[in-house]
Amino acid sequence: MTDRFVLILAGGRGERFWPWSRPGRPKQLLPLAAGGRSLLAATVARAERVVARERIVVLTARDLVEAVRHDCPGVRVLGEPVGRNTAAAIGAAAALFRHAAPQASFAVLPADHAIDDEAAFAADLARAFEVAERELVLLTFGIRPTHPETNFGYIHRGARVAERLHRVARFAEKPARADAEAWIASGEYAWNAGIFVWRAGTFLDALRASRPALAEPLAGLRWSGGDAGFERALDGVFPGLESISVDYAVMERAPNVLVLEAAFDWDDLGSWGAWARRQPRDADGNVLFGDAVALECAGCVVVGDGGTAAAMGLRDTVVVHVEGSTLCCPLDASDRVRRVTEAVRARGGGRA
Amino acid sequence: MTDRFVLILAGGRGERFWPWSRPGRPKQLLPLAAGGRSLLAATVARAERVVARERIVVLTARDLVEAVRHDCPGVRVLGEPVGRNTAAAIGAAAALFRHAAPQASFAVLPADHAIDDEAAFAADLARAFEVAERELVLLTFGIRPTHPETNFGYIHRGARVAERLHRVARFAEKPARADAEAWIASGEYAWNAGIFVWRAGTFLDALRASRPALAEPLAGLRWSGGDAGFERALDGVFPGLESISVDYAVMERAPNVLVLEAAFDWDDLGSWGAWARRQPRDADGNVLFGDAVALECAGCVVVGDGGTAAAMGLRDTVVVHVEGSTLCCPLDASDRVRRVTEAVRARGGGRA
Repeated sequence: MTDRFVLILAGGRGERFWPWSRPGRPKQLLPLAAGGRSLLAATVARAERVVARERIVVLTARDLVEAVRHDCPGVRVLGEPVGRNTAAAIGAAAALFRHAAPQASFAVLPADHAIDDEAAFAADLARAFEVAERELVLLTFGIRPTHPETNFGYIHRGARVAERLHRVARFAEKPARADAEAWIASGEYAWNAGIFVWRAGTFLDALRASRPALAEPLAGLRWSGGDAGFERALDGVFPGLESISVDYAVMERAPNVLVLEAAFDWDDLGSWGAWARRQPRDADGNVLFGDAVALECAGCVVVGDGGTAAAMGLRDTVVVHVEGSTLCCPLDASDRVRRVTEAVRARGGGRA
Repeated sequence: MTDRFVLILAGGRGERFWPWSRPGRPKQLLPLAAGGRSLLAATVARAERVVARERIVVLTARDLVEAVRHDCPGVRVLGEPVGRNTAAAIGAAAALFRHAAPQASFAVLPADHAIDDEAAFAADLARAFEVAERELVLLTFGIRPTHPETNFGYIHRGARVAERLHRVARFAEKPARADAEAWIASGEYAWNAGIFVWRAGTFLDALRASRPALAEPLAGLRWSGGDAGFERALDGVFPGLESISVDYAVMERAPNVLVLEAAFDWDDLGSWGAWARRQPRDADGNVLFGDAVALECAGCVVVGDGGTAAAMGLRDTVVVHVEGSTLCCPLDASDRVRRVTEAVRARGGGRA
């Protein structure tokens, strides 16, 4: 138990909630979690059910460190000098934890997902630690699909190991709609939530086996000189590393991968629409957040942060006011917000 | 010619363009006129085709004087201590002009209407001055109706006096839809645009005849002590005056009223939709103003002032971003914006 850690990956720029989200205030720092907490703060709270706060490390972009520390006081926050995707980030943390405790195990949690059933999450995570420590496997969580989502990766289950625990037949990338429907019908597929548990040594061994050029410089990282010293060590190593996801670099290649079907709810909150589905609504089915007014509206999402967002006579529409920007679009177009931010940037507005 | 003046009434709070318009930046100060000028500046420019700039007086609310002076440099701007509707405002100006020139005549122009054909306007206004000075009548302009508008007052023409010049049978208030349709079909009705021309003495006589308690204190106003002196005189008189429109107080009662059918275009810009009809559009029929982006939109009005307004996937919708507030509603609901400002005020947001 004392050798367990949690790594929260909070380096994403998460712009799907533009204009609420910005480069300096990405999705994980927005108050999108239940109770108006940030997704990151909610992730930390879930992690604290399993490990002590001082054993939680948040890895983020260097320029977000201050904002993250402000959001999560008392948690160790480390900044990457450049983004090098998840394999490098997890590898660096694995070296850090192994140096702190040779038998260390750790969970990897994305900072910007929504999970409301904290008790089920804590129970599943504890079970995952036990399995990973005992079996020396790479354990990933699978989410039971509720609809044929084409924006997620999937995990095809292999042989059953125990209740809700299976070998992994294969990882599958974002599917076409027809494939997603067939996979769900088969009952053999789960969503890949990017939540992992393993011993630090197990992960570093797997990384070395599949990506030796990535593993070698990371394995040499040492915890010395405090947070600033570790960040300086990252400065020397990160720029030269391959930028690759842990799925590609490790999970799809390693032989010792198990998938635990989650007993908890989960959503990646990939759009305004996804967020709205988890929010309380008024009598007309509107989600109002902050300084928001909806008249003669139904099924709308109205958010005012730093100003008033007022909607009248609309259906199923997103209206967002933040300082310096407004977005208005149909809720079912909200997964294409990136098109808007690209257009705003192309105009040189500089506010996206 | 040398005794002609123009009075521009710019005291309105014009909140139909909320959130672009605010109490401190009402409709007449917004860049709603052709070429991005304010409606007030465009009104001054039209007036200058008929009288010299120093013979134009803008009467506004005291707290708007500074903003109005900034918008119209070189024009005499006077502030009312309290709003007392149009009869008192015009009466005060009539006294001012008569004191400057006993035979003075003046035109009354609302500051927040749109007229693009400046040459036709100037020609009509010059003709109106000649008629009013010669005949000692109260002359009002009638606008040929283009649709059965129920938000305007109408003028029922009487006997023909000359080309486009008639006696007035009666002034009619905002009609029901069926009445408006019948009136337009009759060809005998014009819209009441609130544009008047008369000698100062003729107006003061008519006011004294119909509203002596209103006329008496106004007739005593003198031009002494400059603008500040005149404003102090208004301070002593205005608070005690009846608040009544010139239509009720004078036009509906006076026997010597003529209506000149305007040869120019006119719109009172009573809503976002009315404004949009006069604006240039992009290939998809969208009106974009300021820092505005429209993707996959058609027939929309997108305005960004002090920030970016971004719309995606909308039809016939208004999206307005200003500092501190956003409005989003269907274009055909934009004449009910007041409902939104009332709701915002009721919440105590204080930004409406």
